[in-house]
Amino acid sequence: MSRVTCDLTISLDGFVAGPNQSLADPLGEGGELLHRWQFEEPESNTDALKGILAAGAYIMGRNMFAGPGRWDEDWRGWWGEEPPYHAPVFVLTHHPRKPLEMQGGTTFNFVTDGIESALTQARAAAGNKDVAIAGGAQAARQYLSAGLIDELRLHIAPIVLGAGERLLEGVTNLNLEPTEVSGTRLVTHVRYRVIR
Amino acid sequence: MSRVTCDLTISLDGFVAGPNQSLADPLGEGGELLHRWQFEEPESNTDALKGILAAGAYIMGRNMFAGPGRWDEDWRGWWGEEPPYHAPVFVLTHHPRKPLEMQGGTTFNFVTDGIESALTQARAAAGNKDVAIAGGAQAARQYLSAGLIDELRLHIAPIVLGAGERLLEGVTNLNLEPTEVSGTRLVTHVRYRVIR
Repeated sequence: MSRVTCDLTISLDGFVAGPNQSLADPLGEGGELLHRWQFEEPESNTDALKGILAAGAYIMGRNMFAGPGRWDEDWRGWWGEEPPYHAPVFVLTHHPRKPLEMQGGTTFNFVTDGIESALTQARAAAGNKDVAIAGGAQAARQYLSAGLIDELRLHIAPIVLGAGERLLEGVTNLNLEPTEVSGTRLVTHVRYRVIR
Repeated sequence: MSRVTCDLTISLDGFVAGPNQSLADPLGEGGELLHRWQFEEPESNTDALKGILAAGAYIMGRNMFAGPGRWDEDWRGWWGEEPPYHAPVFVLTHHPRKPLEMQGGTTFNFVTDGIESALTQARAAAGNKDVAIAGGAQAARQYLSAGLIDELRLHIAPIVLGAGERLLEGVTNLNLEPTEVSGTRLVTHVRYRVIR
């Protein structure tokens, strides 16, 4: 059966986004600094970047697909007509909607009956490949708390945000084992195996 | 001039101690799990452990020396008659006290005129060796916030404490650059250079 992975970039003080997130500033104040490693030194982080997009199916939360206030039938995601997933994406939502087929192999499927149903559908779609929880942090917390993630890959940016959305707030009973560490001047990559 | 270093073990969610710290439970609930790497696999962490005790002089906060409610002239620290420092230790306090000479080269000196004075004295005592901020977290935060630390060495335990004392709470304007990463199944070591 395919593994369930989850990649997230966090600040050294544990935030996935800075304070005062909004439609105009979805990562919050200072939050864009979290992702400097992806944009400023992609050639030094090829393995980590490839890993993020290596899954056979993806699951994402409603806010990652649509952000606040963007929930209408015309909204086609943040990624343009050819999203980078090139695979089925299952979006957790309370609003039924027909599948949305994009270019390049990405289809957004809208799942209204919960995280376990989304995972079952994603596993079926992924074949032998992994299923990735693509974010945001709330979806990741739900899957972590339910014990449904096999590998958590944190990308720790060397910045202190001081406030914002904490990745691990309220997540308990999480037993992790680091299996690989690497990094650059802008990020520390740590792979964790989730121990059950 | 000698560098100023600081080693701290933190949980993945940023705590240096669990909730409900007390004299009987100075690391708080679950806090002892932070330090498993030091006790269960010292042979796999020799470089990190040596680094913690490589300085020519140490600075520590009052709580690290005495804990809550242990401030009297008879108190000789937590480390027995031969503490592991083997060097001068400068203890930040508001209570004047004569220097306390222990066996093996450790002398506790009590500094009542602030963190900069303690650092000046520690630099003079350290010679060409580093000065280490030995803890606790409050003292580390004070020195970090004042821009007086050159290298922060975090030892990130793969556990989630959920509550307790946060290392970086209230520390702002901290610019860090990871310079080295390594680890085992119980800890991830990251060295950060503090950028000014």
